[in-house]
Amino acid sequence: MIDLQYVPQDEFARVLALEADRVRKTALFADLCRLNALYMITRAGSGHIGTSFSCLDVVSWLYLNELTAADVFFSSKGHDAPALYAVLTALGKLPFDKIHALRRLDGLPGHPDVATPAIEANTGSLGMGLSKAKGMLLANRVLGREGRAFVLTGDGELQEGQFWESLLSAANTRLGNLTAIVDHNKIQSDIWISRVSDLGDLEAKLSSFGWHVARVDGHDLGAIARTFASLASAVDRPKIVIADTIKGRGVSFMEGTALRPDDRLYRFHSGSPDDETYLKAVPEIVERVNAALSSMRAAAVRLESLPRPERPMPRRPQRLVAAYSRALVDHAGRNPRIVAFDGDLALDTGLLPFEAAYPDRFIECGIAEQDMVSQAGGAALKGLLPVVHSFACFLSDRPNEQIFNNATERTKVIYVGSLAGLVPGGPGHSHQCVRDIAALSAVPGLVLIEPSTEREVDMAAAYCFAETTRESCYLRLVSVPWDVPFELPADYELLEGRGVTLVPGRDAALVAYGPVMLGEAVQAAELLRDRHDISLAVVNLPWLNRVDRIWFASVVRDVPALFTLDNHFIHGGQGDMLLRTLAELSLPNERVVRRLGVTDVPVCGRNDEVLRAHGLDAAGLCDTIVATLALRADPANRRVQKDPPYDTEVGRVLSDPADRRVQKDPPYTVTK
Amino acid sequence: MIDLQYVPQDEFARVLALEADRVRKTALFADLCRLNALYMITRAGSGHIGTSFSCLDVVSWLYLNELTAADVFFSSKGHDAPALYAVLTALGKLPFDKIHALRRLDGLPGHPDVATPAIEANTGSLGMGLSKAKGMLLANRVLGREGRAFVLTGDGELQEGQFWESLLSAANTRLGNLTAIVDHNKIQSDIWISRVSDLGDLEAKLSSFGWHVARVDGHDLGAIARTFASLASAVDRPKIVIADTIKGRGVSFMEGTALRPDDRLYRFHSGSPDDETYLKAVPEIVERVNAALSSMRAAAVRLESLPRPERPMPRRPQRLVAAYSRALVDHAGRNPRIVAFDGDLALDTGLLPFEAAYPDRFIECGIAEQDMVSQAGGAALKGLLPVVHSFACFLSDRPNEQIFNNATERTKVIYVGSLAGLVPGGPGHSHQCVRDIAALSAVPGLVLIEPSTEREVDMAAAYCFAETTRESCYLRLVSVPWDVPFELPADYELLEGRGVTLVPGRDAALVAYGPVMLGEAVQAAELLRDRHDISLAVVNLPWLNRVDRIWFASVVRDVPALFTLDNHFIHGGQGDMLLRTLAELSLPNERVVRRLGVTDVPVCGRNDEVLRAHGLDAAGLCDTIVATLALRADPANRRVQKDPPYDTEVGRVLSDPADRRVQKDPPYTVTK
Repeated sequence: MIDLQYVPQDEFARVLALEADRVRKTALFADLCRLNALYMITRAGSGHIGTSFSCLDVVSWLYLNELTAADVFFSSKGHDAPALYAVLTALGKLPFDKIHALRRLDGLPGHPDVATPAIEANTGSLGMGLSKAKGMLLANRVLGREGRAFVLTGDGELQEGQFWESLLSAANTRLGNLTAIVDHNKIQSDIWISRVSDLGDLEAKLSSFGWHVARVDGHDLGAIARTFASLASAVDRPKIVIADTIKGRGVSFMEGTALRPDDRLYRFHSGSPDDETYLKAVPEIVERVNAALSSMRAAAVRLESLPRPERPMPRRPQRLVAAYSRALVDHAGRNPRIVAFDGDLALDTGLLPFEAAYPDRFIECGIAEQDMVSQAGGAALKGLLPVVHSFACFLSDRPNEQIFNNATERTKVIYVGSLAGLVPGGPGHSHQCVRDIAALSAVPGLVLIEPSTEREVDMAAAYCFAETTRESCYLRLVSVPWDVPFELPADYELLEGRGVTLVPGRDAALVAYGPVMLGEAVQAAELLRDRHDISLAVVNLPWLNRVDRIWFASVVRDVPALFTLDNHFIHGGQGDMLLRTLAELSLPNERVVRRLGVTDVPVCGRNDEVLRAHGLDAAGLCDTIVATLALRADPANRRVQKDPPYDTEVGRVLSDPADRRVQKDPPYTVTK
Repeated sequence: MIDLQYVPQDEFARVLALEADRVRKTALFADLCRLNALYMITRAGSGHIGTSFSCLDVVSWLYLNELTAADVFFSSKGHDAPALYAVLTALGKLPFDKIHALRRLDGLPGHPDVATPAIEANTGSLGMGLSKAKGMLLANRVLGREGRAFVLTGDGELQEGQFWESLLSAANTRLGNLTAIVDHNKIQSDIWISRVSDLGDLEAKLSSFGWHVARVDGHDLGAIARTFASLASAVDRPKIVIADTIKGRGVSFMEGTALRPDDRLYRFHSGSPDDETYLKAVPEIVERVNAALSSMRAAAVRLESLPRPERPMPRRPQRLVAAYSRALVDHAGRNPRIVAFDGDLALDTGLLPFEAAYPDRFIECGIAEQDMVSQAGGAALKGLLPVVHSFACFLSDRPNEQIFNNATERTKVIYVGSLAGLVPGGPGHSHQCVRDIAALSAVPGLVLIEPSTEREVDMAAAYCFAETTRESCYLRLVSVPWDVPFELPADYELLEGRGVTLVPGRDAALVAYGPVMLGEAVQAAELLRDRHDISLAVVNLPWLNRVDRIWFASVVRDVPALFTLDNHFIHGGQGDMLLRTLAELSLPNERVVRRLGVTDVPVCGRNDEVLRAHGLDAAGLCDTIVATLALRADPANRRVQKDPPYDTEVGRVLSDPADRRVQKDPPYTVTK
């Protein structure tokens, strides 16, 4: 158990009070912030060191020397949030103690959220920043306010179409009070941009869009000072500063420049360092900090420390993405028409083995989901079987219209969306995908499937890749390795629209899918049996928009209560399909029927915190089921109520922890 | 009743057989195609003359002189389809008689569809073309085939982010066999591009993305010949030809150059000419054609003709967009925080009066929906009440993730999606929006409303703009003027989640929304009463994702059958919400329950044809309701079945007209 060191707030105050020129002081301040960003990420167990370190000199300069009270600054890439939090806490714009709570419930979310003080916009899904800033400046104009907007973008982010879309009008409206800064660290996610989708002559591109372009060494604070001073000259043009930076700047072995050209992956994009790496990194920064302090005739930095928190690790987790990765290579070996498209997430979506085995059939599209999906559509029209990969949150929404367009051509395309569902809860709601089932539910001829174990992944992949499956498929995968307290029956077969009972029960049946919710449900069934003598059947239905009515009728016919459980918003998920089907079955129905699932924007936190906050952990499910059955047992409560608008629930999720247990459907009483 | 003239196929054969140099012959061919494109559009009653005429010289050149059997050509903008159809029918690549069936069922769809011979891709939603072509060329590489791809794009289309997204990888992979042609006619929809979102130095932009750029007068066929010949030199670079064209080229008074700089609108973008205009246009082209023929010592052109079809016009139609247009100006007068965003559809979405009244609060974003929605989000963060406008098909899907991102910031944004639903049926499935309810159903805090009459539009607008409405709203508007056979009760009030009974009934209740489906339902109720002695209640519920359970229970409690009717896919629409709610009510339920709505990709045709094809006209609804009640009356049919995959229905919708009546849920018999 090592100690993690951080720079206390009074040390920042001391440094900022030093007599020294602002260039040297800002460099020192940035390094102090690197120490705290590293502390936050290591303590949290995940975060983005590389991009936080690459932007810290520029961000420090802006906050210490450039921004006025009327100005707005935010980062469009968003995953550099630890750097921003380090600066904001150091300057007292954000409660300092929050540095101990990165990616924790009620702490600092993995990507920026306006619910956090001093955060101007929700970012993390790429390419939206300049558009948002234009809207903010429009508000200033309409409401007669002053103020400029500064937006930090990544460089990989420039592959996103919305970025280019947002450039045109800013130039045409001569938006001189808008300044973009590109953190040009040359590495996107884990790979050299030049290998993914080279940006070419960036200055020429940006100039051709009518923007005033400046270029600067993003770690030379003197040059940064001169560059920002020079921008004033371009009065009536939007400005963009290309800051040439080094990913991981500040710790020699974390710097992108330490990456050998033939290295496939940069190791410090996301995740957190192990003890050894952390202990190696800190002294490097501290030594530089103290050298700077002594050159200013100031005492060495005083650090405080806290033990690194234990991180409970799954014992024998199911790793669905790894299982899919093996299945893809296997099927590709037998079907030469299979090509795989990647949206700059080859590592996270399990594509590296496919890329190694079939480099000519691996298409790296970069962060350009719309282009990727339409390319897949064109390939399908000409005889290939395209398999499109990204995180579910980006794949289902950003190219939503392109997926529909492909569907209207009656071709077969396989979409694989990983990182699906509420957890991991660390990255925040831009990455917690709980809308994809609804967003894709009305795409004709698209089958949505979510497997719960590695074995079921193999079955689902076999279904998707089968020649006999003529429809397009969306394979929804939970990415976080997960211990599951159940096993699929040995004789289980994947049959379209049919599920399988994991736990038999007589008092109620709960239908769910995927490792996370099925896992919590099985544990909830144990709690219900042991504490309340309630016998809950738990049923796995991996089909998200298909149900076999014969099978479903057999599941519900003899139970007095039916619960559905979605790793998704309660609206538009599997529960809606099942309840609609129940109504269509016209069974005698006096049974208790209730959907469980996400009822508000996902909160950010440790996985267990997030599940509890949404009332979707085993204990929360147990309490809700007990309360529901008890309430409904009382005829006085057999009254009907209005479907709750989401917002009635918002306050509760985000405020009083005492209420966290009831963040599902409201109790069955009249709310009006 | 005037006659409409067209060039018969044998005349094309005669012209193509003439001894003449290919430049002059191609110019002549293009003019003949202009006559047939004008014929098709005038006969159909709608279509895009301006863009069809501007691209015809280039498209004719490609088909007559450039394309080989291995090459692929398609238009990304898609609304120039009449030009493409004119060329394809003239060359026998498409059955010639189809020219009489533009925008008719089983004819030629308003936007290209691969179900039509010689059509390579489904286009019409902008910006996807180059991506699709890259996928096709990828397939050639993987499958070891030869062939080039030529893609025609609009110039307004270049505002779409996906276009720029698609440029990068083509340059990086040195895709030398890809050629894009920009039909640069300078006018997008009805307005000068320079007034919407100026493209600036287009050549510099495109060159900076690594493409080989050529520029040519798009009506000088000699120059076009030289330009395409010159492209071969750029062996390993993707090529883009900027063709400077004139919108409406070929008929003097239809040419964009005839537009005075201060004219707000170009009149020949869409729609069809009246008799007088048509009769004035044809002789101009014929005269030029005959001059060319005589210069080739050939006889004058022989035209055939057919009478212009009668077009039944609504007598006293409800015009919902016009009503919304008035309401917006009205509310904006009382709330200075209201700003309106337009995505290059100011005319169609009713924004011209607002623009005239509040020019400083009107933001024209061009064809850039993602940028538009994120701008609105930024404006909302800084205190404005943004109202975002586009066609429902583009607003709900293209910026789907941006709408969710705004929702996570808990701000209020009003989205207004017009052209919603199955009709008008002429433009085709890229514009027939029947997915938006599902795509937006899981956006937290977003209320979806569809009014059915001008009066209900006023009520819905009042709800959306009210200070007391804290949630964001999506106002779904049918655009086509529609005669409705019902009136809302004089004492009707819009109450969240509650509807109103338009026709009382005791044997079954049908819940629907909007002018089209409510209109058909009310007529179906009359047919059921008169022909079958069945008493059907018709209920209007304008709330698409909210239902008051107390009210709904009162609607369904005493009827033996419940039907829901969506102007949307049956999956993810209002019907799903109502059936789910019915299950949650746990009422004794032996009642017949059935969702009616769209079950497959919308077909293209005249409005009455489209409604009939999907079984959603009054007669189709009547038949289905009778059949359902009869089937369910027979206990032998009380068996359950599987939820139908869409594809089982596809064949029927698109093939045998005899089956058209049953294009809804399958009959209640076992399908397995």
